[in-house]
Amino acid sequence: MRVAIVGATGLVGEMMRRVLEERDFPLTDLVLLASQRSRGSKQRFKGEWHKVRGVSPAAFNGVDIALFATEAELSREYAAAAARAGAVAIDNSSAFRMDKDVPLVVPEVNPGDLKRHNGIIANPNCSTIQLVVILWPIHESYRLERVVVSTYQSVSGKGKDALTELANQMDSYRANLEAIPYSLVPRVKGSVFKYPIISNIIPQVDVFVDGDHTREEEKMVNETRKIMGLPGLRIAVTCVRVPVLFSHCESVNLETEKRADPAKVKRLLSRSQSVEVIDSPRSEQYPLPLGAADSDKVFVGRIRRDPSVPKGLAMWIVSDNLRKGAATNAVQIAEKLLDLGLL
Amino acid sequence: MRVAIVGATGLVGEMMRRVLEERDFPLTDLVLLASQRSRGSKQRFKGEWHKVRGVSPAAFNGVDIALFATEAELSREYAAAAARAGAVAIDNSSAFRMDKDVPLVVPEVNPGDLKRHNGIIANPNCSTIQLVVILWPIHESYRLERVVVSTYQSVSGKGKDALTELANQMDSYRANLEAIPYSLVPRVKGSVFKYPIISNIIPQVDVFVDGDHTREEEKMVNETRKIMGLPGLRIAVTCVRVPVLFSHCESVNLETEKRADPAKVKRLLSRSQSVEVIDSPRSEQYPLPLGAADSDKVFVGRIRRDPSVPKGLAMWIVSDNLRKGAATNAVQIAEKLLDLGLL
Repeated sequence: MRVAIVGATGLVGEMMRRVLEERDFPLTDLVLLASQRSRGSKQRFKGEWHKVRGVSPAAFNGVDIALFATEAELSREYAAAAARAGAVAIDNSSAFRMDKDVPLVVPEVNPGDLKRHNGIIANPNCSTIQLVVILWPIHESYRLERVVVSTYQSVSGKGKDALTELANQMDSYRANLEAIPYSLVPRVKGSVFKYPIISNIIPQVDVFVDGDHTREEEKMVNETRKIMGLPGLRIAVTCVRVPVLFSHCESVNLETEKRADPAKVKRLLSRSQSVEVIDSPRSEQYPLPLGAADSDKVFVGRIRRDPSVPKGLAMWIVSDNLRKGAATNAVQIAEKLLDLGLL
Repeated sequence: MRVAIVGATGLVGEMMRRVLEERDFPLTDLVLLASQRSRGSKQRFKGEWHKVRGVSPAAFNGVDIALFATEAELSREYAAAAARAGAVAIDNSSAFRMDKDVPLVVPEVNPGDLKRHNGIIANPNCSTIQLVVILWPIHESYRLERVVVSTYQSVSGKGKDALTELANQMDSYRANLEAIPYSLVPRVKGSVFKYPIISNIIPQVDVFVDGDHTREEEKMVNETRKIMGLPGLRIAVTCVRVPVLFSHCESVNLETEKRADPAKVKRLLSRSQSVEVIDSPRSEQYPLPLGAADSDKVFVGRIRRDPSVPKGLAMWIVSDNLRKGAATNAVQIAEKLLDLGLL
């Protein structure tokens, strides 16, 4: 079993390597690939050093599973090449997610969709994954009618440069704390974010697509519908960037066809191996991004009745966007392919 | 015209002094009061230094307007004393807000309620003020059916110690950036927040009251209904603390009886002197907390159709919680009392 990671030097690529090692994925050979610019570095896997090689169509010869942690452009260029070389490509970019011939999979929700793969499987958007892991069991028991989501997304979704940018702004902001105006936070040329992100909140993730929604919001709507097989699901999303390094949070209000009792929903969600319910208002326990970071679980809490509709629930969902939101879900797809004999 | 500020040494009390000076409020005498612990310091107003005196019932003799920037406990102790001494108390705490005999006023929404004051007027919760300034014109034109709000609230709502706590955590976090676990962020005894606030999001503002809602959420529901005179308004709120120093943000989804066109709503809101519409997706312009800080306006943007209901709107509301959310609204109440001859 030869596994390749494409984009091995990025945040998600590095996390894929960690997750493969942690989960003791049954591979015999690891191939680390990156753009020509990033090749040459070395990375450790199970005690051995592996050189990162430049990606090319020939690099996929003999590869069984290719995990793509690349931008859509590179995925479009190489995923089909990997498939032609006989590998199954599991792609973390948005390139193929809405392609009818490509399954978009969260193993807890729609593992059966893997059966119709044609060499490429898409890994969903980070914010979508943590949402559907919680929505799916609720839908199965109570039937979803409508979902309203506001996100609180960490900067690691934008890669290593974004982490550095927030850290650097912590320094300069701290030094000028008495002054308020935001011109004081230096933004260097080539900044990841258009505005300072320290002590700020940016109600935009990804570009605007149709004049009023962002691509991230569009992704969450379309991907949630596709993964859950509910093309008509009524869902409204506002995506927001916050000055947090790791983990995304979501404030969710939903309406169901059958009345859902919060206590029963807590028990229902507790039964999922992928979910941890942290919900004890009395002791002020609920999911936090700092607490979710570096875990593969989806955390949920503040589960309560939404008093503004007859059959409404409100809740708070948190997960590490680099792990369950990206690397872990991709590796879990690979594990499920093995389970189902679909390689 | 003698004006007193009670709690003059806190963040809101200091801001009241600044706002009185900036707006050139027609006072002839400024009396600065604080708890016995904080008395003795000196503060500048229009070029002159004023000594902060300890608050006592006698301190209100001859005072016409007493602006209270105190915790509910101190307000309960002294607001009635101020009223008995002949002053009108404008109280920023939660002590009297839901009292039937006390008007709860946002001058843009319900100035007429001032007429029935009995010496005490309540200034609403910060998150509520910025919400109703936007909701009210929409309700007048389109009739509100339901409101769903998720907040992004800055730490300055918890006072000076909270600002210092976030700043100190910026230092220690920056120094340990490579490590992720949150035990690394030192929380000293007596910390304002139960959890680290740097690189974190806390889905709790104020204490839990009925097992699943927080007092802040309860305030926003009850105060919004009272100010707008809509006791049956269907409203669901999730209040969340974010690592931002100044300004609160709100992601709002609302439903109206009459269909509201986003372009018309933008024009409608633009006509309010208190509102600034920043809404240009094409150039990635929308309200930011860093941009709203130190302004008296309520900023709104990302106004768009909520596609999940027939007559829905989504929007993003931002305002400086210390100014329009507290000090400015209190001073505007005082100005309105003068206008209406109600002193």
